[in-house]
Amino acid sequence: MRILLTLSYDGTNYHGWQKQKNGVSVCETVENAIFIATGEKVSVTGSGRTDAGVHALGQTAHFDTSATIPPEKFYKALNPFLPSDIRVVASKEVDKSFNACRTAKKKTYAYSFYVSNVENPLLDRYAMHLRDNPDFSLIESAINELVGEHDFRAFCASGSTAKTTVRTIYGIEIVKNKNGFSLEFTGNGFLYNMVRIISGALIDVGNSVKTKTDIIEALRTGKRDLLGKTLPAKALTLKSVEY
Amino acid sequence: MRILLTLSYDGTNYHGWQKQKNGVSVCETVENAIFIATGEKVSVTGSGRTDAGVHALGQTAHFDTSATIPPEKFYKALNPFLPSDIRVVASKEVDKSFNACRTAKKKTYAYSFYVSNVENPLLDRYAMHLRDNPDFSLIESAINELVGEHDFRAFCASGSTAKTTVRTIYGIEIVKNKNGFSLEFTGNGFLYNMVRIISGALIDVGNSVKTKTDIIEALRTGKRDLLGKTLPAKALTLKSVEY
Repeated sequence: MRILLTLSYDGTNYHGWQKQKNGVSVCETVENAIFIATGEKVSVTGSGRTDAGVHALGQTAHFDTSATIPPEKFYKALNPFLPSDIRVVASKEVDKSFNACRTAKKKTYAYSFYVSNVENPLLDRYAMHLRDNPDFSLIESAINELVGEHDFRAFCASGSTAKTTVRTIYGIEIVKNKNGFSLEFTGNGFLYNMVRIISGALIDVGNSVKTKTDIIEALRTGKRDLLGKTLPAKALTLKSVEY
Repeated sequence: MRILLTLSYDGTNYHGWQKQKNGVSVCETVENAIFIATGEKVSVTGSGRTDAGVHALGQTAHFDTSATIPPEKFYKALNPFLPSDIRVVASKEVDKSFNACRTAKKKTYAYSFYVSNVENPLLDRYAMHLRDNPDFSLIESAINELVGEHDFRAFCASGSTAKTTVRTIYGIEIVKNKNGFSLEFTGNGFLYNMVRIISGALIDVGNSVKTKTDIIEALRTGKRDLLGKTLPAKALTLKSVEY
């Protein structure tokens, strides 16, 4: 049978989701737990890669097993064999035609900021520090340019192996909280570093370092150098994957 | 001149505030930063100890210096020489008669809980996991017994060196948030492990493992074994110290 897992993890100590030669990945850590729980060497397919240091609340992944553990209880069998910074939060059986990556329709990522005079060590692990709030109306107007189907070539790190750089962003929401805010991106898929580059560009627009016109030009010309730095991984979380 | 610092720290990687032989303390790390910034070997006096693993948003500490850095800017001179899990958030000059420990009138600690079916790795560093909400009305009624001046002998770990175990709790508030809640304690001082023992006892009452009568009996008899376990340090934060 094919099992779909939903996973949360603190990505700080991992070299990303995908198996790597030069560091421990979340994927191989989950495969090891499945091996201990079932005795089977399986290959786990995630909904997509999360980069080194990126977190997840609702990453999804599938694998095939002949173990007799009831599908809905599978997560309980794996958690004892996982480090505390990775938890399987749910499990269920899916059809053999289901693929955690290819069947995915929508993903939501959140990039988090906190606003304070000095860095706050209790917030700094999962959010990026800003000294002041940006101008949210400027950010909103840049968001309007980004939402929809576009060629996001300028918003992707070199080294991306994607066949096409066209993606659809369904929405970008500014979600305020007591310590700051997050930018929540929902789309049909995201290129390598795309959320971190867009987040940086939107903050630059909100701080009047860049303008909406720079965003429009980057979309039109595909030129990465029209935009600022890629923001750090630590403040990015994969919230959910929809099928 | 005498400088009062306000500090925030993630206590995970420290053996508490107070200088220790067998591990790095927050206090000595701050003294080292002052040495680098001013060339002076000073002794820093905190408002009180925080135990190994306990965090702070508003710890306070004083020291004497002949450095010519303006008092209100002192925090900016220290932060470059501190690790990112310790930040000085404010500094000011105080009178020579002021003592960060002895002059303290009120302290507020928060013990944080999050409620979810499975542990959440993104919340687990600073809060304790509960599978279900406790009965808050039972907790409220036990809180009513604890508030006020009492001998908290039963609510303190052995090894405490306090001269008296009488303390006054001005209030214990249940503060709900989107992930769970925290118990916020304000008092004139707290014994060794006192907040962690009371927090555990209150959750036990909320889960009907203990009753309000056990709390009353513990206050009356001073017997530690009427109460449950001391909760872990990781979910405790010193929020503020008032003078």
